[in-house]
Amino acid sequence: MDYRGRLRRLQFALAEKRLDGLLVTSLPNIRYLCSFTGSAAALVVLPDSCYFFTDGRYTQQAHEEVHGATIKVAKKAALAAAGEWLATTSKKRVLKKLGVEGEHLSLAEGVRLRKMLKPAAIRARQAPPLVERQRMVKDEEEVARLRQAALLGSTLFDTALKAIRPGVSEAEVAAEMEYAARRAGAEGMAFETIVAAGERSALPHGRASKAAIPARGFVVCDFGVILAGYCSDMTRTVYLGCPSAGERDSYEAVRQAQQAAIEAVRPGRSVGEVDRAARNVLNKKGLARYFTHSTGHGVGLEIHEAPRVARGQSEILQPGMVITIEPGVYLPGRGGVRIEDSVVVTEQGCEVLVPVRKELMTI
Amino acid sequence: MDYRGRLRRLQFALAEKRLDGLLVTSLPNIRYLCSFTGSAAALVVLPDSCYFFTDGRYTQQAHEEVHGATIKVAKKAALAAAGEWLATTSKKRVLKKLGVEGEHLSLAEGVRLRKMLKPAAIRARQAPPLVERQRMVKDEEEVARLRQAALLGSTLFDTALKAIRPGVSEAEVAAEMEYAARRAGAEGMAFETIVAAGERSALPHGRASKAAIPARGFVVCDFGVILAGYCSDMTRTVYLGCPSAGERDSYEAVRQAQQAAIEAVRPGRSVGEVDRAARNVLNKKGLARYFTHSTGHGVGLEIHEAPRVARGQSEILQPGMVITIEPGVYLPGRGGVRIEDSVVVTEQGCEVLVPVRKELMTI
Repeated sequence: MDYRGRLRRLQFALAEKRLDGLLVTSLPNIRYLCSFTGSAAALVVLPDSCYFFTDGRYTQQAHEEVHGATIKVAKKAALAAAGEWLATTSKKRVLKKLGVEGEHLSLAEGVRLRKMLKPAAIRARQAPPLVERQRMVKDEEEVARLRQAALLGSTLFDTALKAIRPGVSEAEVAAEMEYAARRAGAEGMAFETIVAAGERSALPHGRASKAAIPARGFVVCDFGVILAGYCSDMTRTVYLGCPSAGERDSYEAVRQAQQAAIEAVRPGRSVGEVDRAARNVLNKKGLARYFTHSTGHGVGLEIHEAPRVARGQSEILQPGMVITIEPGVYLPGRGGVRIEDSVVVTEQGCEVLVPVRKELMTI
Repeated sequence: MDYRGRLRRLQFALAEKRLDGLLVTSLPNIRYLCSFTGSAAALVVLPDSCYFFTDGRYTQQAHEEVHGATIKVAKKAALAAAGEWLATTSKKRVLKKLGVEGEHLSLAEGVRLRKMLKPAAIRARQAPPLVERQRMVKDEEEVARLRQAALLGSTLFDTALKAIRPGVSEAEVAAEMEYAARRAGAEGMAFETIVAAGERSALPHGRASKAAIPARGFVVCDFGVILAGYCSDMTRTVYLGCPSAGERDSYEAVRQAQQAAIEAVRPGRSVGEVDRAARNVLNKKGLARYFTHSTGHGVGLEIHEAPRVARGQSEILQPGMVITIEPGVYLPGRGGVRIEDSVVVTEQGCEVLVPVRKELMTI
C-alpha cells in the first residue's frame, strides 16, 4: 500500500486548511495512513513528519506494522501520550492550530486533550473529515483487496442456500455461513449476519434470530466478511415455497430498481442521482414508500464509510470509489426483499465486484 | 429485568447531582435502562418521565422492546430528534441543566447538540458515569444471565481442545469455537477470539491468525460469547508437547497468582488489592515485569465495563459485581500464559461463575 503517498496527500490537505497538524484518533484512519491494525493508537501528522502512539500491549505489533511514522510506546493511553508529547514538542516547532477528528474523539477526551494542550498554547479545532475523504477513492491495491473480499463473501451465498430450509433457525444458517467464512480465511464478519425469514424479512435490520424459518416466504440474507482488512457486503433474497404473483412483482421491482441504480453509476454523476434511479423504479410500481432506507454506502476498511448513497446527497462519483447498491422493499407483517452488490466506479461506469445471479430463486 | 427500579435509581442520582435531565447516548446504557437492543437510539431521562428516540428502521422493534419510556420515532437521527425535542419541551418544564454522557458523545455531536439547545437556554454538561456505576452491581437476573453465558462459553474450551493440534491454523481453531458457540445458541462472540500459539502466545492480544500451530509450546485461548445480551470471558492456556521445567514454573506461577487474586475478592476490599494479590505472587517468582496488563475488568452487557481491576484503583467491591481475574506472563519471543475466570462478588467472598480445571493440560 502507498502509505507514503497517503501521508503526503494528507499533509497537503492540512496546509490547505491552514492546520499545523492533525491528531488522528479513528482506528480505520490510522490503519489507512500507517498500516497499524491494533485497537489502541493515536497518530500525530505534522507538515513534515508523523508520530505514532500506542501502549505496551502493542510494542511488538507496532514495530512490525507501522509505516512512515516514528513509533512512541507509552505507559499511558495512546491519546494521553499524544497530548503530552504535543504539548512538549510545541516548544520546538510551530504548532498553534491542531486539527482533531470531531467524529472520532469523545466530548470527554476532547476536554482532557484541551487541558493538556492549553499550557502549550495549542488550539484544538475540529478538522473536516480529511482522511475519510481520501479513503473514498480506492487505489488499485485496495480495489484488489475489496474484490478478494467480495469473492470470498459471495461464496457464503452458496452456503446459505444449502442451509436454508423450513424449521432451521435463522441463527443456524448464519452459523454455517460464518463457519464457512472463517474456514475460507476471513478474519471475521464485517457486520452481524442478517438472515431474516418470512415476516421477519420485512425488518431491514433483522439480524439472524432463533426464529425457525417458516415453510413459505422470503428469506433475506445480508452478509459480509473482512479479508486483509477490507469488507465485503452483499444481499440476496430467496423464496421458500411458491411465491404469489404479488411477491414475484415485489422481487422483480427491487431487481429492476437495483439494476437501474447500477446503470446510473458513472464518474461525474452524484450519489443522489444513483439513489433516485432506484427510487424512480419503485415509485412507478407504487412501492417507493416501502423503500425505507438509502440506496447504499461506501465500503472499504469499514463496512459503512463515505459516500452515503442517499436522497439529496451531492457527492460526485469518481473512478475508484466503491459503493453498495442495495434497494429493498419491506411490507410490514408480510415480507421484504433486498438485493445488494458492491460496485467499483470505473472510467466509463461501474463494475459489479462479483456478479452473482439475481433472478428470483425458490427453494 | 427491573427496568422501573433502574430508572428510578437513575432519577434519584440525577436529583443528587442537581441535573434536570440526562441524555443517554451509550447503547448499552440505553439497553440497561429500557431494554432496546437496536443500533440507533437516544434516551432522555427527566425527573418524572423518560423518552426514547429512534429512527424508522426500528419502529416495530422499539414497540416490541422498550420498557418504561415514551417512544418517539423520528425521520432523522435519534440524537438530532432528541435534541430538537428537548429544545421544544423546555418551554413546558424546568430544563436548564442537562447531563450528557461525555464518553459516549463525540465532539462533533456535542457541538451540534449545543447548537440545538442554545435557543432554549438548556446547558449541556458532562455528567458523571451514572448509568455505568449502576451497571457495576448486577441484580439476580443479570447474574443468572452471566452464569448462562459463562456456562455456554466454557463449553468452547472443549471444542478448542479437540481442534488444537500442530499444523492447524489458529484461525481454524477459532472457527470451530465460534461455530460451536453459534450452534449452541450464542448471539455472537463477545470479542475477537484469541488463539495464540507458540511464540505468539507471548502477545497478550494475539487474535487468531493464519499461523499454523507449532508442534510445541503454549497455546493461549481467550474467548467469550454473548447470550441474551450478556458477555462471557474466559482464558485457558494449554501446552502442546512436553513443557520444560521453566515453562511448568511459569504456568504454575500464573495459576497461583490467579488463585490468590480470586481469594482476595470480597466485599469491602478495593479492586487495587485484588490486582496486588496477583502481582505479589508473580513478584515472588520474579515474573511480575512480564505481567504487562491489569488483572481484570467488569463484565456484563459489555465485555469491558467498570470497575477496572488494576493497580492503584480504589473502587470498593460490592456483592453483585462481576469481574474477570486474568493475570498472565508473557516472555517475548518465547511464550505466554494467561488464566482467566469471571467471578461474581458474594456476601462472603466470590464465586467463580463456571469452574473449569486449571491444572496444566498437555496435548
